[in-house]
Amino acid sequence: MVCKCGGKVYFRRKYEGTELCKKCFVRSIEKKIKKEIRINNLISKNDRICVAISGGKDSTACLYILNEIVKKRKDMEIFAISIDEGIGEYRKKTISKAKELCELLNVPIKIYSFKEEFGKTLPEILNHRINACTYCGVLRRYLLNKKARENKATKLAFGFNLNDEAESILMNFVFGNLEKFLRLGAKVENKEIKKFVPRIKPLREIPEEEVFAYCKALNLPHYPKKECPYGKESVRKTIRKFLYELEDRYPGSLFQIVKFADLLIPPLRKEFYKKGKIKYCKICSEPSSKEICKVCELLEKTNL
Amino acid sequence: MVCKCGGKVYFRRKYEGTELCKKCFVRSIEKKIKKEIRINNLISKNDRICVAISGGKDSTACLYILNEIVKKRKDMEIFAISIDEGIGEYRKKTISKAKELCELLNVPIKIYSFKEEFGKTLPEILNHRINACTYCGVLRRYLLNKKARENKATKLAFGFNLNDEAESILMNFVFGNLEKFLRLGAKVENKEIKKFVPRIKPLREIPEEEVFAYCKALNLPHYPKKECPYGKESVRKTIRKFLYELEDRYPGSLFQIVKFADLLIPPLRKEFYKKGKIKYCKICSEPSSKEICKVCELLEKTNL
Repeated sequence: MVCKCGGKVYFRRKYEGTELCKKCFVRSIEKKIKKEIRINNLISKNDRICVAISGGKDSTACLYILNEIVKKRKDMEIFAISIDEGIGEYRKKTISKAKELCELLNVPIKIYSFKEEFGKTLPEILNHRINACTYCGVLRRYLLNKKARENKATKLAFGFNLNDEAESILMNFVFGNLEKFLRLGAKVENKEIKKFVPRIKPLREIPEEEVFAYCKALNLPHYPKKECPYGKESVRKTIRKFLYELEDRYPGSLFQIVKFADLLIPPLRKEFYKKGKIKYCKICSEPSSKEICKVCELLEKTNL
Repeated sequence: MVCKCGGKVYFRRKYEGTELCKKCFVRSIEKKIKKEIRINNLISKNDRICVAISGGKDSTACLYILNEIVKKRKDMEIFAISIDEGIGEYRKKTISKAKELCELLNVPIKIYSFKEEFGKTLPEILNHRINACTYCGVLRRYLLNKKARENKATKLAFGFNLNDEAESILMNFVFGNLEKFLRLGAKVENKEIKKFVPRIKPLREIPEEEVFAYCKALNLPHYPKKECPYGKESVRKTIRKFLYELEDRYPGSLFQIVKFADLLIPPLRKEFYKKGKIKYCKICSEPSSKEICKVCELLEKTNL
């Protein structure tokens, strides 16, 4: 079999029944992402986009494609932020890849560390606690929002792919987490909270294996191993395993889940979002739903 | 360990961390079901309840408990309907158990068969088609509604347990079936459609294994094997396997899924239900969303 252009097949899309050469595959990925950006108004005039990069394939692809768009425009800017949680050799290697990518693309990169910002690395904070991902996720998002804002970003872009998004949807659905469920979507903004930088996910319709194949096709520098040494978060793994099986048996299932959530979430937001007083944390002044934000609460617990 | 009453432990409830003797277990199940009936107004004055029974544990428990309530009241009536799809020995055995139960409880039973109603048994209709469950489910629900109505029932009760309900919720969620998703719940009614008998599910908060233990504790006659010979519907099996694993790791997950769906569905119904013209099938005059109902469409396809 050959690609419809006659070229040698590089990627087989089971859910579409298509086979694409490297060039057609790359073009099709970029077309999809640009369509996602256009339909959901992910970026707009005069945006200064901050891309959260880890050195992994997803954020690498995200930075690359956003830079391709931004570099052609005079009214937009782009930069990258990496968070160094201090997870030993693993983070050192991924950050070195992130730097390499930014140098290649000529995109400024800023690196912030848990050690400097919170006084301790993740391993020091955890001190043998099990739920590393909860701590790390909360602290990382907090720091990214704060640093993006301090660097005058108008958008904060994440490299979440289709699998990540379907996993988050299903996880919050089966565990009945309404607050997090309603926060899902291609764009998350909260105009009432001035300190919150709107988040965008340009890759949320691209399956994980296609993001990987895209990085490989373009030979983009990235750290190939997926798993962080702490990544044993079993909830997400149970969900992931189920979704792999589902997608394998019923190709297109992941798309369907994301599409269905996109249909349900807007009317649910209307119903459940009541305009409440916006609070800011009494300790750090960052946006919070409670008097003390989750980060300060966690840091308090760890006696920081 | 002993039950809080001092009796010998009969059932261990992992999600509650309780251990119950036979008597306390039976009482707790009945209390839960009665609460479910009360909170959701499942039955009301002057009801004539039709219970769909298959001979299996779920419908057995459902008939037993509803009869316990109805027999104490003068304004209510109860009867059972069994559908004989003509699935050979399997259905013969289950129907014989259903009859035994009704005799024991002194509840009238009516048996209707695919052969008499549609002219063919399920195996004859299927003629080697794979999706037996789709055909059978549609035809069975159609016949139950029609016969319940002809027998002047005001409610049609099903023995769906917690696992069934969580499975249906997740199945319709991951496959993005909005119509079916919105039809889930403890009570399904459609006042606009006169020919539709309101459906109730009194057991939807009872886990499958507890329904089983309940039947065993009361020594209720039922056919113990779960699986119909056609029951190879792989979609539901994939979902079931995942939910078993989830409940095992995170006891209480099944409840959480049902509770979350109960929270989301009412506002979604408000948003998505537009009052359309109620249609009745041109061929059989039963309620239908299209000109020709699903049953007549299926029967047409099978050249009946």
